[in-house]
Amino acid sequence: MHDLLLRNVRPMAGESCDILIRNGKIAGFGTFEADGAMPVEDGQGAIIAPGLIDAHTHLDKTTWGMPWHVNNRAAILRGRIDFERENRKQIGIDPHRQSMRHAIGLAANGASHIRSHVDIDTTHGLSLVEGIWQTRDALKGIIDIEIVAFPQSGVMVMPGTVELLDEALRQGCEVLGGIDPCGIDRDPKGQLDILFALAVKHGVDIDIHLHETGDLGAFTMELIFERIRANGMEGRVAISHAFALGMNDYLRVGKLIDEIARLDVAILTTGAPSATVPSIMRLKEAGVRVGGGCDGIQDTWGPWGQPDMLDRAKIIGMKNGLRSDIELAHVLHVVSQGGADVMRLKDYGLAIGCNADFTLLTGETLAHAVVDVAPRPMVVKGGRVVARQGKAIVEMP
Amino acid sequence: MHDLLLRNVRPMAGESCDILIRNGKIAGFGTFEADGAMPVEDGQGAIIAPGLIDAHTHLDKTTWGMPWHVNNRAAILRGRIDFERENRKQIGIDPHRQSMRHAIGLAANGASHIRSHVDIDTTHGLSLVEGIWQTRDALKGIIDIEIVAFPQSGVMVMPGTVELLDEALRQGCEVLGGIDPCGIDRDPKGQLDILFALAVKHGVDIDIHLHETGDLGAFTMELIFERIRANGMEGRVAISHAFALGMNDYLRVGKLIDEIARLDVAILTTGAPSATVPSIMRLKEAGVRVGGGCDGIQDTWGPWGQPDMLDRAKIIGMKNGLRSDIELAHVLHVVSQGGADVMRLKDYGLAIGCNADFTLLTGETLAHAVVDVAPRPMVVKGGRVVARQGKAIVEMP
Repeated sequence: MHDLLLRNVRPMAGESCDILIRNGKIAGFGTFEADGAMPVEDGQGAIIAPGLIDAHTHLDKTTWGMPWHVNNRAAILRGRIDFERENRKQIGIDPHRQSMRHAIGLAANGASHIRSHVDIDTTHGLSLVEGIWQTRDALKGIIDIEIVAFPQSGVMVMPGTVELLDEALRQGCEVLGGIDPCGIDRDPKGQLDILFALAVKHGVDIDIHLHETGDLGAFTMELIFERIRANGMEGRVAISHAFALGMNDYLRVGKLIDEIARLDVAILTTGAPSATVPSIMRLKEAGVRVGGGCDGIQDTWGPWGQPDMLDRAKIIGMKNGLRSDIELAHVLHVVSQGGADVMRLKDYGLAIGCNADFTLLTGETLAHAVVDVAPRPMVVKGGRVVARQGKAIVEMP
Repeated sequence: MHDLLLRNVRPMAGESCDILIRNGKIAGFGTFEADGAMPVEDGQGAIIAPGLIDAHTHLDKTTWGMPWHVNNRAAILRGRIDFERENRKQIGIDPHRQSMRHAIGLAANGASHIRSHVDIDTTHGLSLVEGIWQTRDALKGIIDIEIVAFPQSGVMVMPGTVELLDEALRQGCEVLGGIDPCGIDRDPKGQLDILFALAVKHGVDIDIHLHETGDLGAFTMELIFERIRANGMEGRVAISHAFALGMNDYLRVGKLIDEIARLDVAILTTGAPSATVPSIMRLKEAGVRVGGGCDGIQDTWGPWGQPDMLDRAKIIGMKNGLRSDIELAHVLHVVSQGGADVMRLKDYGLAIGCNADFTLLTGETLAHAVVDVAPRPMVVKGGRVVARQGKAIVEMP
């Protein structure tokens, strides 16, 4: 781990100071003399924030840096899933190379941590997870990667998947994923009973994709709540997307949010502009842990997205109809501290004793930093400068 | 007007060719020898598209390039209008300087034409319009600007505004604007009767802001349709935003769109992520003219936006839930040819005899060009290179 004296930065857009870093940890804020051996960097008065967190992405899917993937297929969820599973190898989406590109892009744009769902299915077994593990090793000290064992193709409709999930958790995947127990799996009780049993067996958290909208998604949420209670998994379950919370029924959504807060369920949002999405301000009022994520970027599912959590912050902010400086500062919170809260990261933040993982931001205020489109001036991980002006110290393969 | 030999470009992502430009017009596509005097540029195989068009913006409002404008005011439409009107001078939003920044940014990012609503109210009279006229003169040959005389503060609720609109049209504003006849003016018959009478008197088109949602917006649309028929103004009215067309009532929206197509009403959309917006694909099927716009960028209303029609294309595409290459190519159409159709631009397009107004785009295909985030390699206006790599040949003041 590294020592560093970072001069003239403004923590969360506050007063300028120096930050002293010893052995990869924040040792002090103030004014410091450099000792001879210590590297010194000049922050030039930039805002400094803790590392951004992409708490919902898919490192194994992107075509970033590959030839443009033409997609004129029908936009049906099940069709997207099956096409990708059956064609990803032939298209050349190598999980290690592509996840390197994706993760390096995120680091270059200020991220320090990633939670990535990685597909596990009977076609690929654990080979995609293994590709991301290679990337995790290769990027040690640049960006941290947590892996969700993710049954993208379904659990009940894909016999053999349960055994693969079990093996993935045995081998060290940190979190268990799930997907649309009604919409994809056609058997909500079946999938959810299995997921909770596996999670309890391995002592891992759950993070379940829930694209189901309106009453259907609300029903599935209620099934999830029942199983959290039954298994004592309060504080250990996350719901990604949670489109049902964007339904146009204020009272119903309020009841769901009350339960979410009571059971300390975390919500991950991507601010999907064409979907019904949860209100991050309403969740904040209820005290719910909320993180943000890029989701898939430029993959066989769709063309959108960049490996940049500030780009995502803009999308989340605009989709939520936020305009005020106070609200925009909260968007920044969602893509940083919010993600850390969801992932239960230790020693995260801008305080003495925390890991020296942070990014400089352009702009005068936190709100300005969210809307500004300039590259991050500098990104630091464990006290080492890992990117400057949007360019990481490691090259994309 | 200028001559130019532009080598090695791909019109609309087709086969590479040279484009010969004589006197500011496209004289030929093929392979040409340069004569001695003619400037030659190498397009390096980039896609070439006609100039992008911002067909709905507000050049008089932005704080671009000024100190960050902190905004923690309540998000009420009437409040935003009144705050801006009463404070814009004190904040220092000089209409000429700020519209220069805004318009130069658009040109640098590939736009050749702007339709800008400009506030006309009893506090400022025509002074804001005059600032934009200065900008239009200063940027002649860089970007074309059309002005909508826009009663931002309302017509019926702001006595004296009608006379100012009348004067603005007399002095040469090309289009007459309007705003939420119910929501802002509280008198839909009053405002619309006056607008149509003024438009007929001056022989100008109408482009009316309609933020009204659901049944209210649909009602106002019907009032507009009645007056188009009564005044023979088929093909001469545009509705900006048209949020009512995003309401969740397929049949009702279908009937409105049928009328819109029948009366050749144009629709302008900004793809506002937090609003109900018209479906550009449904409007395309109905044969409706649809353009896109950045709307206000970083102003007292809100912090979002950039002077970049490809950034706006992304927002429109994501909000419309578009993913396929065919759909994305249509998004590009909306922010180029679509805007030209709305503004009835003459000699616009990539054909012999058309004005040599175009932009190079990065990417392999039109869809790729829409999602890519690189600066435009080169922008040409009237046969002259006016921007390279996102930087215009004129500096922002």
